[in-house]
Amino acid sequence: MSEPKGTVVLAYSGGLDTSCILVWLKEQGYAVVAFLANIGQKEDFAEARKKALALGAKKVFVEDVRREFVEEFVWAAVQAGALYEERYPLGTALARPCIARRLVGIARRERAAYVAHGATGKGNDQVRFELSCYALCPGIQVIAPWRLPEFYRRFPGRRELMDYAEKHGIPVPVTPQTPWSMDENLMHISYEAGILENPKNPAPPGLYTKTCDPATAPDTPDILEIEFKQGVPVKVTNAGDGAARQEALELFVYLNEIAFGLIRFSLFFCFSPCLEKWLGIYETPAGTILYHAHLDIEAFTMDREVRKIKQGLALKFSELVYNGFWHSPECEFVRHCIGRSQEAVQGTVRLAVLKGHVYVLGRASPRSLYNEELVSMNVQGDYEPADATGFININSLRLKEYHRLQSKVTVKQDE
Amino acid sequence: MSEPKGTVVLAYSGGLDTSCILVWLKEQGYAVVAFLANIGQKEDFAEARKKALALGAKKVFVEDVRREFVEEFVWAAVQAGALYEERYPLGTALARPCIARRLVGIARRERAAYVAHGATGKGNDQVRFELSCYALCPGIQVIAPWRLPEFYRRFPGRRELMDYAEKHGIPVPVTPQTPWSMDENLMHISYEAGILENPKNPAPPGLYTKTCDPATAPDTPDILEIEFKQGVPVKVTNAGDGAARQEALELFVYLNEIAFGLIRFSLFFCFSPCLEKWLGIYETPAGTILYHAHLDIEAFTMDREVRKIKQGLALKFSELVYNGFWHSPECEFVRHCIGRSQEAVQGTVRLAVLKGHVYVLGRASPRSLYNEELVSMNVQGDYEPADATGFININSLRLKEYHRLQSKVTVKQDE
Amino acid sequence: MSEPKGTVVLAYSGGLDTSCILVWLKEQGYAVVAFLANIGQKEDFAEARKKALALGAKKVFVEDVRREFVEEFVWAAVQAGALYEERYPLGTALARPCIARRLVGIARRERAAYVAHGATGKGNDQVRFELSCYALCPGIQVIAPWRLPEFYRRFPGRRELMDYAEKHGIPVPVTPQTPWSMDENLMHISYEAGILENPKNPAPPGLYTKTCDPATAPDTPDILEIEFKQGVPVKVTNAGDGAARQEALELFVYLNEIAFGLIRFSLFFCFSPCLEKWLGIYETPAGTILYHAHLDIEAFTMDREVRKIKQGLALKFSELVYNGFWHSPECEFVRHCIGRSQEAVQGTVRLAVLKGHVYVLGRASPRSLYNEELVSMNVQGDYEPADATGFININSLRLKEYHRLQSKVTVKQDE
Amino acid sequence: MSEPKGTVVLAYSGGLDTSCILVWLKEQGYAVVAFLANIGQKEDFAEARKKALALGAKKVFVEDVRREFVEEFVWAAVQAGALYEERYPLGTALARPCIARRLVGIARRERAAYVAHGATGKGNDQVRFELSCYALCPGIQVIAPWRLPEFYRRFPGRRELMDYAEKHGIPVPVTPQTPWSMDENLMHISYEAGILENPKNPAPPGLYTKTCDPATAPDTPDILEIEFKQGVPVKVTNAGDGAARQEALELFVYLNEIAFGLIRFSLFFCFSPCLEKWLGIYETPAGTILYHAHLDIEAFTMDREVRKIKQGLALKFSELVYNGFWHSPECEFVRHCIGRSQEAVQGTVRLAVLKGHVYVLGRASPRSLYNEELVSMNVQGDYEPADATGFININSLRLKEYHRLQSKVTVKQDE
Repeated sequence: MSEPKGTVVLAYSGGLDTSCILVWLKEQGYAVVAFLANIGQKEDFAEARKKALALGAKKVFVEDVRREFVEEFVWAAVQAGALYEERYPLGTALARPCIARRLVGIARRERAAYVAHGATGKGNDQVRFELSCYALCPGIQVIAPWRLPEFYRRFPGRRELMDYAEKHGIPVPVTPQTPWSMDENLMHISYEAGILENPKNPAPPGLYTKTCDPATAPDTPDILEIEFKQGVPVKVTNAGDGAARQEALELFVYLNEIAFGLIRFSLFFCFSPCLEKWLGIYETPAGTILYHAHLDIEAFTMDREVRKIKQGLALKFSELVYNGFWHSPECEFVRHCIGRSQEAVQGTVRLAVLKGHVYVLGRASPRSLYNEELVSMNVQGDYEPADATGFININSLRLKEYHRLQSKVTVKQDE
Repeated sequence: MSEPKGTVVLAYSGGLDTSCILVWLKEQGYAVVAFLANIGQKEDFAEARKKALALGAKKVFVEDVRREFVEEFVWAAVQAGALYEERYPLGTALARPCIARRLVGIARRERAAYVAHGATGKGNDQVRFELSCYALCPGIQVIAPWRLPEFYRRFPGRRELMDYAEKHGIPVPVTPQTPWSMDENLMHISYEAGILENPKNPAPPGLYTKTCDPATAPDTPDILEIEFKQGVPVKVTNAGDGAARQEALELFVYLNEIAFGLIRFSLFFCFSPCLEKWLGIYETPAGTILYHAHLDIEAFTMDREVRKIKQGLALKFSELVYNGFWHSPECEFVRHCIGRSQEAVQGTVRLAVLKGHVYVLGRASPRSLYNEELVSMNVQGDYEPADATGFININSLRLKEYHRLQSKVTVKQDE
Repeated sequence: MSEPKGTVVLAYSGGLDTSCILVWLKEQGYAVVAFLANIGQKEDFAEARKKALALGAKKVFVEDVRREFVEEFVWAAVQAGALYEERYPLGTALARPCIARRLVGIARRERAAYVAHGATGKGNDQVRFELSCYALCPGIQVIAPWRLPEFYRRFPGRRELMDYAEKHGIPVPVTPQTPWSMDENLMHISYEAGILENPKNPAPPGLYTKTCDPATAPDTPDILEIEFKQGVPVKVTNAGDGAARQEALELFVYLNEIAFGLIRFSLFFCFSPCLEKWLGIYETPAGTILYHAHLDIEAFTMDREVRKIKQGLALKFSELVYNGFWHSPECEFVRHCIGRSQEAVQGTVRLAVLKGHVYVLGRASPRSLYNEELVSMNVQGDYEPADATGFININSLRLKEYHRLQSKVTVKQDE
Repeated sequence: MSEPKGTVVLAYSGGLDTSCILVWLKEQGYAVVAFLANIGQKEDFAEARKKALALGAKKVFVEDVRREFVEEFVWAAVQAGALYEERYPLGTALARPCIARRLVGIARRERAAYVAHGATGKGNDQVRFELSCYALCPGIQVIAPWRLPEFYRRFPGRRELMDYAEKHGIPVPVTPQTPWSMDENLMHISYEAGILENPKNPAPPGLYTKTCDPATAPDTPDILEIEFKQGVPVKVTNAGDGAARQEALELFVYLNEIAFGLIRFSLFFCFSPCLEKWLGIYETPAGTILYHAHLDIEAFTMDREVRKIKQGLALKFSELVYNGFWHSPECEFVRHCIGRSQEAVQGTVRLAVLKGHVYVLGRASPRSLYNEELVSMNVQGDYEPADATGFININSLRLKEYHRLQSKVTVKQDE
């Protein structure tokens, strides 16, 4: 055992890796406080607490961050309509800064100089964790064992971890390991690594856990009504049985249940600051429903030119969150601006959820910018058709001038 | 009959509106040349030709523009991954500049000083048509009857059109009119107006024509392999029966057939330069498959930073096409830049088409930027974990400084 | 005299054009209320009032909008650092929505159904005026005589205006007209049209009125200190004589005086929605000083990533203002976001104003993000040089992979 | 002396730092090849060669990269109109990838596994150098002594370097060192560090070397005509004495001479990937003239909508070059796109250079999009004023609808 080095708060998952890290940190001379965030993953938290204490943790904090995760992080992504690279709803990327904030909070409370995590040295999660920690508590020191040669050389593979576990009385999982890794939270589950690293392979049968196969999903849709205020859902009603949910966390959990038959993403690519390309499979049931519902009510209530600007800000938001910059001045700024754009995003969207699809059926809003009378082909209203002629002519002036010049140049070149 | 005014080339659809316009233009003293573009819509072209001649057209041109539509317009949209407002694949917006180009070509050949069309005075299509005409042939004069008071006051409703038709021997449709209007081409069909103008209403049963209901679609997927070169599909193979298509038009038609069970968009909003909001339902079967397949192969082969820039250009492309500026210097510029970005977008995507969804199963490419070894959690390769520490630290410097300053300011404010 | 048509509020300048318009409007049967905005132009307002009454105006309002112009419009442009097309500080474009707002306010007060202005039918000002009016008061009707055939055909040139003036007792200017037109306000003066329309010509001698020739300007600089809060100047001190100004309008007027020797723009191009290119000469003395001072204090206090986003928003702001969309949901949104970015833009900039140039000498701020110790080559501080190695290596991974692939492809092509 | 480690090519400047590095590398066991790029800095190259050989360099290459610097790097910046953070013309940032490319070329020729440079561990230049090296030659290994503890701990200050020099026969500069550091190339000179690190201080007297004080500059302007083709200057004519230059390098050198009286930037801020803020003074004489001339001819010949897109790409270009990504797929892509935009940027700009200012006097081009007749207030041409009414009305529809809704909401809230 090394000489005492002070206290470290470890982001503990209950799994093999962080259990080994817990013991190893103790070996290095640290007093270890284990922090296990309940962010909606399937986990036996009581069991995990016992395990951490058994492994020598000085203290264990199991804290439920689900509500703040939904209200502060997921809702911001819903407002943004965030999709990284047009496909990834950012499920993991949103969870990291939420967990890290609590981690740093505990470190402060416990007067610990260190925090530690079990993220690998190649992926994005290490970046997301650590940038969050440093941004919120510049003096903190982060220990990332998977980047320390004394750790990763000692544990070049799972075999060595298992041996270490056995030697130190760390319980090893009894079920055989899936040939891929998973990360789960209330919003999504991701599957990565292992056999999924081959880009030619489809998702193996039995992989999906949060959604069912469209081929076997029920043939009748669920009909939902989602009410939004300021761009976030405030009420969900199931038109079938009249069930309703209003509180953010409950509402989100309910949507996850309903959406069980919903969208599942195939293997696809994302990018890592460390690596050019990255492969993963993601399931984001409630997030997918909300994405479509929000898009619809936003288009219904937001001025089109405001929306174009907001779209640019949302692209930036996705990129920042993906790259770990949630806790940064620029992300704070972008969230503020997007929030402002949502002030009038209000109303109710009716939709059908069926076999992996969300179909918007209709919508209504007191803030709608849609003017049925103006639109109607059968009602002239205030609209003066001759105005369109002027509009087109003015817009064509530039194009005509351009053509005139091009012709002049082309004629010259032909001579 | 008015005094002779010269020749007008009319974009003729064979339907009631443009038939009435044809006769009306003759009444005004124009010699009318009818041009009917075959752009993939369901139509009895021989019958339409006869009808136009019977109504007094001086000449009738029925021209097949399907190949150039696919190769020049649809392929550019596939390369761009174009989606206007994140939902609309631009089916109608892409067809207009293609038809208008041919229209102007015929006007030139026939030495006509005028072209005419039957687009309404409220929508986008008038803008798309006319900007194209003026950009390609600045001297042309466009007659848009639905914007001329002498026309639209004479025909305030369908009733008056029917009366006029009867009086002038214009055959009226025998099937009852759908309570909405449709616009079809090889890429898509749109349903708009009429009962669809109420934002609360879902799509009425029986509306869809190019796709089938996921609830009743087959339970087994079609498996396709699509090969891309320079960002456009060059071969489609059906893994089921081995059927293959390579020529652009055939390939696209084939995908439309396969995709019959595919995605259908619910009613949603788009925007018009004339009107703030617009409602429509769209079906884009082959276009939807290609959108997903292209997105996947692009992410597989394109550098992530190039892709971010390309994404910005594609947003611009969608906006320009939507607003009628296909034939403009800026759209030409953007198409060129996007084309350049596609040089290495090459490879084969394997996908399943099932109940309205496209699932990417895998992909392979000689130009892939994905390095399985570098990505692998189990292979260290050239990758040095300590580098990630430096990367994170450098990125956190700015965040720490910001925090330092914020604290200083906050402390001061607290004092 | 035509039959009575109700009341029109005319944006009256006191010059020949709007005087003729006033009389002409009366001829058409309107009761004319003249509104003359004092927005900082050189004008004998008492004389103009008398003139308008003499010409038959029912009422005349001379209103001083200089303070709101500076505080609401100019300050927003300073915060944005707005430069249209990288050159034009938007002097005229900012004044139009300010004047139009008051114009509409008077129309409301006077229960007038019409407003009128004397802007030409080719330029941007008509657009800026009218979009502002319609946005603020959708029911208002705008009369733009220079777009009405009955007006512009009657007055094809200045000659006819002069004749009309003579006939109706409208005083004509005694000084010979400059062979160009001018538009002046507190922020700038523009020279356009006439002999300036030839792109080969330099500015004629004697044209400039708000700035002096650098060749003859004093050889000693003025030294100023400008203090900013939330991105707007709150105090200017002249280091030479200790003179200080704090109130917005006084401060701005003072800077205009000091800047007399300052920047003058040569003839250059802007764009009009109506015309592809436009030529003008602009002088913006105080605006130029503030542009440079604000840029400096902003760079000193704003996070660099926030600034990049803000730069994009400022580009949009300039475009919107230039095109007449100040009073629009999107410009409101953009102003809000830019305003938010300015919260920490605080501090004092010291600068020298000399012969058409502004030289920043130094700056200080309680909100500076500049850390002298961190920057210093001689102080290592917390900075760990090895981190830069990791940073560079991680960033180079992608470039190396790209090179690897390019080589592979090239080799193949060579074979 | 350590054991032999192979050959390193050192980017040698002839100064104290890289001379010490040369000797130190030899001490470590490397065979050192010195490479001294002539990129336009003031230097006695023959003397430097002798010195390097005397210090034990195995070989010395003095290579003139000025022509490629101008033709490939500076011209691309001129086409882009590149200004980082609206102020910095990127003089140093453009030189680094040019020097690095040659450095790597020599390493290849000499079969050296290493390259080394003397850039500090805090600035951007290390990043620019190394990313270039790795992108062009992924296998190369970079030695950056100022980031190696064994080096920087040995030389914590200038004193220690001087001692080392004395001990190893390295000639030390006889002139007293300026209390700041400089970096010079054909395009610009920068002054940084030392006493310049205090943001409150103005540039000390006597600092500037490439420009003269406006207060004492001649009172008569130089009049130049610059001809552009495809966005780059192809001929400069001095209207005073008729002198002309056409070849790229000669032309650029000539402009530097003429521009001696020209713009000098005060101390201002840039950003480093490593540090939030950075202070420097820059002189870029010829670059400043070309920036203004190019901006003018571009605005004269480029469609305004193309230009907006190009502006976005140019912002990206500046950011990439500033951050060291010249040799990257995205910068290559952006350069290609910008190059495409320049095809019609052709013509001649006439300008006056006077006391630190560039005044554009006029311009002419066979590709001008400016239509004097269309613009003229006195010529109606094809322009129909009523079209502007339609244009304004259509644009105001959206604003009116927005107002209508806002009022409705406000009224409700007031109730």
